[in-house]
Amino acid sequence: MTAPVYGKVALIGLGLIASSMYWAMSRRGLVGEVSGYARSEATRETARRIGLCDSIAESAAEAVADADLVVLAVPVGAMGAVAEEIGPHLKPGATVTDVGSVKKEVISAVGPHMPEGVHFIPGHPLAGTEHSGPESGFATLFDNRWCLLVPVEGSDRAAVARLKTFWEGLGAQVEEMDAEHHDLVLAVTSHTPHLIAYTMVGVADDLRRVTDSEVIKYSAAGFRDFTRIAASDPTMWRDVFLTNKEATLEILGRFTEELFALQRAIRKGDGAHLHEYFTRTRAIRRGIIEAGQDTDAPDFGRVKVER
Amino acid sequence: MTAPVYGKVALIGLGLIASSMYWAMSRRGLVGEVSGYARSEATRETARRIGLCDSIAESAAEAVADADLVVLAVPVGAMGAVAEEIGPHLKPGATVTDVGSVKKEVISAVGPHMPEGVHFIPGHPLAGTEHSGPESGFATLFDNRWCLLVPVEGSDRAAVARLKTFWEGLGAQVEEMDAEHHDLVLAVTSHTPHLIAYTMVGVADDLRRVTDSEVIKYSAAGFRDFTRIAASDPTMWRDVFLTNKEATLEILGRFTEELFALQRAIRKGDGAHLHEYFTRTRAIRRGIIEAGQDTDAPDFGRVKVER
Repeated sequence: MTAPVYGKVALIGLGLIASSMYWAMSRRGLVGEVSGYARSEATRETARRIGLCDSIAESAAEAVADADLVVLAVPVGAMGAVAEEIGPHLKPGATVTDVGSVKKEVISAVGPHMPEGVHFIPGHPLAGTEHSGPESGFATLFDNRWCLLVPVEGSDRAAVARLKTFWEGLGAQVEEMDAEHHDLVLAVTSHTPHLIAYTMVGVADDLRRVTDSEVIKYSAAGFRDFTRIAASDPTMWRDVFLTNKEATLEILGRFTEELFALQRAIRKGDGAHLHEYFTRTRAIRRGIIEAGQDTDAPDFGRVKVER
Repeated sequence: MTAPVYGKVALIGLGLIASSMYWAMSRRGLVGEVSGYARSEATRETARRIGLCDSIAESAAEAVADADLVVLAVPVGAMGAVAEEIGPHLKPGATVTDVGSVKKEVISAVGPHMPEGVHFIPGHPLAGTEHSGPESGFATLFDNRWCLLVPVEGSDRAAVARLKTFWEGLGAQVEEMDAEHHDLVLAVTSHTPHLIAYTMVGVADDLRRVTDSEVIKYSAAGFRDFTRIAASDPTMWRDVFLTNKEATLEILGRFTEELFALQRAIRKGDGAHLHEYFTRTRAIRRGIIEAGQDTDAPDFGRVKVER
């Protein structure tokens, strides 16, 4: 086996992402040891019970002591406070990264608390499920997914290269991007789609003439995918929208503009407009399958195909 | 084995639904024989090549001759013309059904062409994938999915019961619903979600500052599910929106109202509103999993879980 990429890794926050990182590190002996910390005592108890991390600390400061890599895996809105708490306890030369879905805000919140000699390299693995908590993680979550690193002004290139090796060891493909562009790209590919899914599920729930049980029973025809997206962690997503406000509102504006145009085509009975639009969007799907970011199985893995 | 539910079945249109029906009928010897017809010669050729149906006819009239059950599996906008063509060739006592996503319009378009002594019982299996065409079908598509039957005024109860037995044989659970309510329920659970997904994919494609390749590469974070929905057959969906106009526009109106409220919460930084909304929608997902209409596997079947 090759040498570990880092001697000691500290995971601050023990939800879906951190727990998946631990299982992915474990399967390949990627690092020397892993300490974990979560604010909730119940979460720390669960982590100990299921064997998550080599040790569970009783404070974030304790967890990061002597760590070569510290991963902030808490909701975006909690990053600043955690950074402030751990700042004085970081080992000189350590790397601090995060897994937040928004990058400009994390950089503003965390950056000021990073002491001289510590490498702060924001990151964002584009992987997840609708589940949350320490028991939701699994080792293959990052396999063939992207992890975006967002080095800040003057980031140490050797430290960035090492973090890249680490994420590749977890199974991900790594690219670099600047924070502004990251937040816009994610507003398109993730944040706005989530808001729309949340909205649609809320509408269904509100509609008195269609019962909840009907919505649930007959969900297979499209709505089901929305509910999966809209089942994601509420705290995480609240923070995403509050901290990527500008880009989300811009994309939402474009979305409603397009939606109104399609709505008008429906009202006017303009079938040609609808058909042309739907044909164009179909081509994009083809690109995603070719890029290996989804499966083309006819049932999306729901049932086995047998003729 | 029990006796076939119908002696001869005719499938008019040979896309995803009809081809899946054929494979599902075949696996259990549900009917005596199946004849198929599709308007396009290329589709008929493909059907013959892959062994879809026991015989492929050269006209819809020929396909329905002597059939005990005729299934109209063409886009909603084409139902009326097909009904007019086959009307004079239907066997007395035969049942005609359809698989269209909209019911009020199909009843108006098909009903007048049904001769005395033929049972017209509209239906709608709530199952599908984003794929289309004769090669996209598979035998398990309807397993554990709902099929809604929408009997019209004066439908023969024995004929309805027989069609129910047929759909149960295909693997589906059957319920009855009136046409007006069907069209509203489907506007919520299927039609509006599809329009929204199409719109979001279109927005992503239009945005010049985010390249198509970025949208495709980074789609795993939510957008991917939208592209799958938005890859569905353009002709089928054009017809759905043109023929279920009223209910779709009503639900769209509610959707934009809710979306504006959430947009306002983001702009004002109202985290409590967002958190409360996202918590409520999460509960609906739980109901869908409990109702057996989706899997709770952490990765939705994308990869095997291994720790």
